Amino acid sequence: MAEVKLFGRWNSPFSQRVEMALKLKGVEYEFIDEDLRNKSPLLLKYNPIHKKVPVLLHNGKPIAESSVIIEYIDETWEGPSILPKDPYERAMARFWVKFIDEKCLTAMSEACSKTGEEKEKAIEEAAQLLKFLEEEIKGKKFFGGENIGLVDISSNFIGYWFGILQELMGLELLTKEKYPNLCEWIDGFINHSFVKDYLPPKDKITEVYKAWLNRRSNFA
Amino acid sequence: MAEVKLFGRWNSPFSQRVEMALKLKGVEYEFIDEDLRNKSPLLLKYNPIHKKVPVLLHNGKPIAESSVIIEYIDETWEGPSILPKDPYERAMARFWVKFIDEKCLTAMSEACSKTGEEKEKAIEEAAQLLKFLEEEIKGKKFFGGENIGLVDISSNFIGYWFGILQELMGLELLTKEKYPNLCEWIDGFINHSFVKDYLPPKDKITEVYKAWLNRRSNFA
Repeated sequence: MAEVKLFGRWNSPFSQRVEMALKLKGVEYEFIDEDLRNKSPLLLKYNPIHKKVPVLLHNGKPIAESSVIIEYIDETWEGPSILPKDPYERAMARFWVKFIDEKCLTAMSEACSKTGEEKEKAIEEAAQLLKFLEEEIKGKKFFGGENIGLVDISSNFIGYWFGILQELMGLELLTKEKYPNLCEWIDGFINHSFVKDYLPPKDKITEVYKAWLNRRSNFA
Repeated sequence: MAEVKLFGRWNSPFSQRVEMALKLKGVEYEFIDEDLRNKSPLLLKYNPIHKKVPVLLHNGKPIAESSVIIEYIDETWEGPSILPKDPYERAMARFWVKFIDEKCLTAMSEACSKTGEEKEKAIEEAAQLLKFLEEEIKGKKFFGGENIGLVDISSNFIGYWFGILQELMGLELLTKEKYPNLCEWIDGFINHSFVKDYLPPKDKITEVYKAWLNRRSNFA
């Protein structure tokens, strides 16, 4: 049995975050691509509470929740640091990850999934929240400074998936005109030698989102 | 100026979590009790995104979000460890804190604040979620083992505030019959020499909740 297994999904940004962390550290792992409509008994066994990917299995012990897994990876394996070493900088990185996960992703997802007034409200909220990231990335190459770190990895939905989705939906939320610094970060992030080889292909993500939009319109 | 300041609220469990962490480490601090209906310009300056307590100010540098602050305290000051030392145990502690903050507290708050069908749904969800904590604490004195740790501190709403609230509302959600292990933990937690001296008095919390219930019934 491989020492490290990752129960994930090829097109999940959360799953991808953990893959990026493992690759940054040079950890070899076996990837188990879960069918999320027919989850494996092992995934349900290892994550009985949330029943979600990603789950990391290390020496037979499971860990769920991407942000928890990434800190575990950083503490367990040698290699480039994913979190900063300085306690205050670490706190700031954790703050931004919480902000992205609990605020930005909710608003950005609702901007795409809701309709009518709820959609407009979510777009407005997402626009406000992204301004804080726009300010935070100003004058920096990456959120982690010169190198990709925890906040960059955790912003992967904003950096890649969301652009594909907003283009498909004709949304103009995250644009160069409104967020020049954030869009510069996106360019740097998706073209970084380390990132670009590992992102799922745009055409395949597009297919998944198109199917989702079709299902939605059939049920609307 | 004091080296460490805490912008908090005497009756906020989130604020109280940070106080417990500072006290566990023996850190001296100045407590600034915020009027949450008329927040101070300093609080808004130090936490411009969430505009909430608690905010820790250390050597002039602000940190927001109780879970982020507690990890900072643990990494910055000597004294008893708040998080376990072992990476896997640390991951588990972080997992439970996320579970409590993102799942349990939402459902338990909604069980008290919603009405009708939404209330019933929240009660049912909270009951399910608490079963996971009931199972986790089984056979252990504290979530942290023999000593109070991160998960115990982060369960303070469940251990203290919620009992007062459910009694006032006549809710029978978290009872000895349904959750014997969790209720044994609650007894041990609130009577622990370290905890009991620092919890806000029950009669004062009761007053706050009564006023809240009155305002609600006036606007219902």
